[in-house]
Amino acid sequence: MTNDKKNFKEIQNHLKETGFVFQGSEIYGGLANTWDYGPLGISLTKNLKGVWWKEFISKEKNNYGLDSKILMNPEVWVASGHVGNFSDPLIENKVNGKRYRADHIIEETDSSINAEAMSKEEMAKYIKENIKEYDGVKTDWTDIREFHLMFETHQGVLVDSKSKVYLRPETAQGIFVNFKNVQRSMRAKLPMGIGQVGKSFRNEVTPGNFTFRTREFEQMELEVFVKPGEDDAMYKYYIDKTNKFTNLIGLKKESMRLREHDKDELAHYSKGTTDIEFMFPFGWGELLGVANRTDFDLKAHMKHSKQNLEYRDPITNEVFVPYVIEPSMGLDRLALAILVDAYEKEEERIVLKINKELAPYKVAVLPLNKKYHSASAKKVFDKLIDMGIDATYDEAGSIGKRYKRQDAIGTPICLTVIDETEKEDKATIRHRDSMKQEDILVSEVKNYL
Amino acid sequence: MTNDKKNFKEIQNHLKETGFVFQGSEIYGGLANTWDYGPLGISLTKNLKGVWWKEFISKEKNNYGLDSKILMNPEVWVASGHVGNFSDPLIENKVNGKRYRADHIIEETDSSINAEAMSKEEMAKYIKENIKEYDGVKTDWTDIREFHLMFETHQGVLVDSKSKVYLRPETAQGIFVNFKNVQRSMRAKLPMGIGQVGKSFRNEVTPGNFTFRTREFEQMELEVFVKPGEDDAMYKYYIDKTNKFTNLIGLKKESMRLREHDKDELAHYSKGTTDIEFMFPFGWGELLGVANRTDFDLKAHMKHSKQNLEYRDPITNEVFVPYVIEPSMGLDRLALAILVDAYEKEEERIVLKINKELAPYKVAVLPLNKKYHSASAKKVFDKLIDMGIDATYDEAGSIGKRYKRQDAIGTPICLTVIDETEKEDKATIRHRDSMKQEDILVSEVKNYL
Repeated sequence: MTNDKKNFKEIQNHLKETGFVFQGSEIYGGLANTWDYGPLGISLTKNLKGVWWKEFISKEKNNYGLDSKILMNPEVWVASGHVGNFSDPLIENKVNGKRYRADHIIEETDSSINAEAMSKEEMAKYIKENIKEYDGVKTDWTDIREFHLMFETHQGVLVDSKSKVYLRPETAQGIFVNFKNVQRSMRAKLPMGIGQVGKSFRNEVTPGNFTFRTREFEQMELEVFVKPGEDDAMYKYYIDKTNKFTNLIGLKKESMRLREHDKDELAHYSKGTTDIEFMFPFGWGELLGVANRTDFDLKAHMKHSKQNLEYRDPITNEVFVPYVIEPSMGLDRLALAILVDAYEKEEERIVLKINKELAPYKVAVLPLNKKYHSASAKKVFDKLIDMGIDATYDEAGSIGKRYKRQDAIGTPICLTVIDETEKEDKATIRHRDSMKQEDILVSEVKNYL
Repeated sequence: MTNDKKNFKEIQNHLKETGFVFQGSEIYGGLANTWDYGPLGISLTKNLKGVWWKEFISKEKNNYGLDSKILMNPEVWVASGHVGNFSDPLIENKVNGKRYRADHIIEETDSSINAEAMSKEEMAKYIKENIKEYDGVKTDWTDIREFHLMFETHQGVLVDSKSKVYLRPETAQGIFVNFKNVQRSMRAKLPMGIGQVGKSFRNEVTPGNFTFRTREFEQMELEVFVKPGEDDAMYKYYIDKTNKFTNLIGLKKESMRLREHDKDELAHYSKGTTDIEFMFPFGWGELLGVANRTDFDLKAHMKHSKQNLEYRDPITNEVFVPYVIEPSMGLDRLALAILVDAYEKEEERIVLKINKELAPYKVAVLPLNKKYHSASAKKVFDKLIDMGIDATYDEAGSIGKRYKRQDAIGTPICLTVIDETEKEDKATIRHRDSMKQEDILVSEVKNYL
């Protein structure tokens, strides 16, 4: 079944019941579209981060990890342009007192318009002339006001001189301001990349669609610094690499499409941006993007900080400000895409066909008969855990019921412990996707995975 | 050399130069004691989190992971007591306009006093009577004012009705409010634990001592829910377990001491608390703690949320509010302790004797002669990376210089690629701690580790 045919509400309920995602602060009625990862959700996201790290940091010889802080000197956000420009255009209907994203309601009304290319005044004019009714009521529109998307807070002890700081809206700037520190301490030559995984915060006007758009979210960003002129090739390399990454984590080809941004929708700093979009039950949504950010960020920080962020080529002695290629993805929406893609409702069961590498548990250990086999099953379970295999143990209910329970949380194989297990090391393996069974030696399970 | 004899400034410089820790937002002059982890720092903290997760979640059959949000419904912090009580007593010297932690300056003046047991008025009285000069100037003290430690921010689109939310000051409450969700979805029986790793924020009056006390920090917290009456045994179990954990990650016995809190310094919710303190270059500091939080938190949330958080024993049908045992540690100070303990300045080298499991790189691959051996060394490096081994490659400078460079970042073994490597799979292994060398087959490196 394609994802647009899947019932999103049903999937959400399933993910809650099975311990993937809970509503944040649920016992207090929640908090505006926040979601917590339960035991299975954190396993999935941990595994996903692990694969990302392996592919984008460990395996790329000249890429390095970083972990910069959420709270940064506010001048960082002045230089990056966020203080000045990171806002959404809001318009209010005086009739019902509700505020809306001006660009969104224009594009809803006429999908052929690219509202991002319009000025505030143009948008207000269009809306006033064309949208006479909205949200079920007549309209009387105000002008457009910019709504800032950065969360503000204050730190320090003196109330009168407490300094305003922001929660970072992206992890990327933490990388740019550390470019020289990393390059120098690693004695790295260009091209080099710096990547990090971490929380970002945006005070979105309309968070929603479950974990797709939330105000607190986690990013996996890589910034690759290259010599100007070598940027186009690197841009292509990372479009290809992110494509392969989506395959590696098991996303279906038919659930995705590549979208290159048109010239007029490119961010002002970008020479080119390509998104991978994913078909969610609510429609196509941006999954990840690769952007050629040129030398915009480093130059902005050089100018504002008065620090030299140029690079000197050790062989040619050429001095230049590097260009930056940025593959950037949201952990939460990637995890959601994986779960949506994996979710299948069959006649007899709900199954999550999650890629083996990412599945919360790799193996479920099940004593065939609780009375006779639980002692040796527990030994098998302990052995797997000691080998570093994510395993779970279940002895409650009929074996068929337990298979179903594991299918529902995406465990690739069940290992049923039988009479022969204790003495002959033999057990029955049962596969999630094919539901087929075969005999196996317990000592072989690790290689088998 | 014991840690109190080590030069802290020298260690900090070393960690910066080698890419463990950089000053946050450094190019903008930093931001009040914030620190970023460089490539080696993030490797170390990732490894440390991995060991914690393995020991406290994976290996404990009835413990589960969680990842709750930093932003929670503000009622959570009303119930937990943070909105009412989470503050520090500050006193201002009118002569120089500076503010100080009242309890700190009392204990500085007379180390036999436990200021935490004093009331605000008692502290003010003591200070006014006894501290006539401080910070090099005469004093004229104000009364004591409580300074709140939670960071505040606002979310939502309507300026007039924006809702105030807090950055969580601890991860623990995210666990308590999810107790039922986790217990139910995992069909878990008590005793069960829920653990998580994540950022917390405290607007500390005096952050300092490098990464020891920072306003943004990362916690590894586990809350173990037990039947009342079984709490003392579980408390002892986790004191023992955290002790073993500090040994497992290689902290020296002589750098630590156990400290049980006296009755009068226990938090109001605690039946018992035991800290492990660590000898830093600046003195003894709290490294981690195990607390018996009783049923305080769950009862507070039951009362405030009007939700039932009781547990029904499936066998006896007894219904009760569980007690909670909490082993809690700060990732940043644990990482700092490891680095401080590992740092040794020898005549010929600086060496970080970091535990093998935690070292940023496990193996450095070094071509003996760049000209002749770099091609086969690169093959070896690729092979190690493919096997999932954290490896680094270095061909710059003499072999002795490269050994030193690896010693300085704690790489346990160097693998020198020689003539025989290509054909006979033979290489020279050199050990960080003993500096001894021996021959090895490259294919054996993984088992060797």
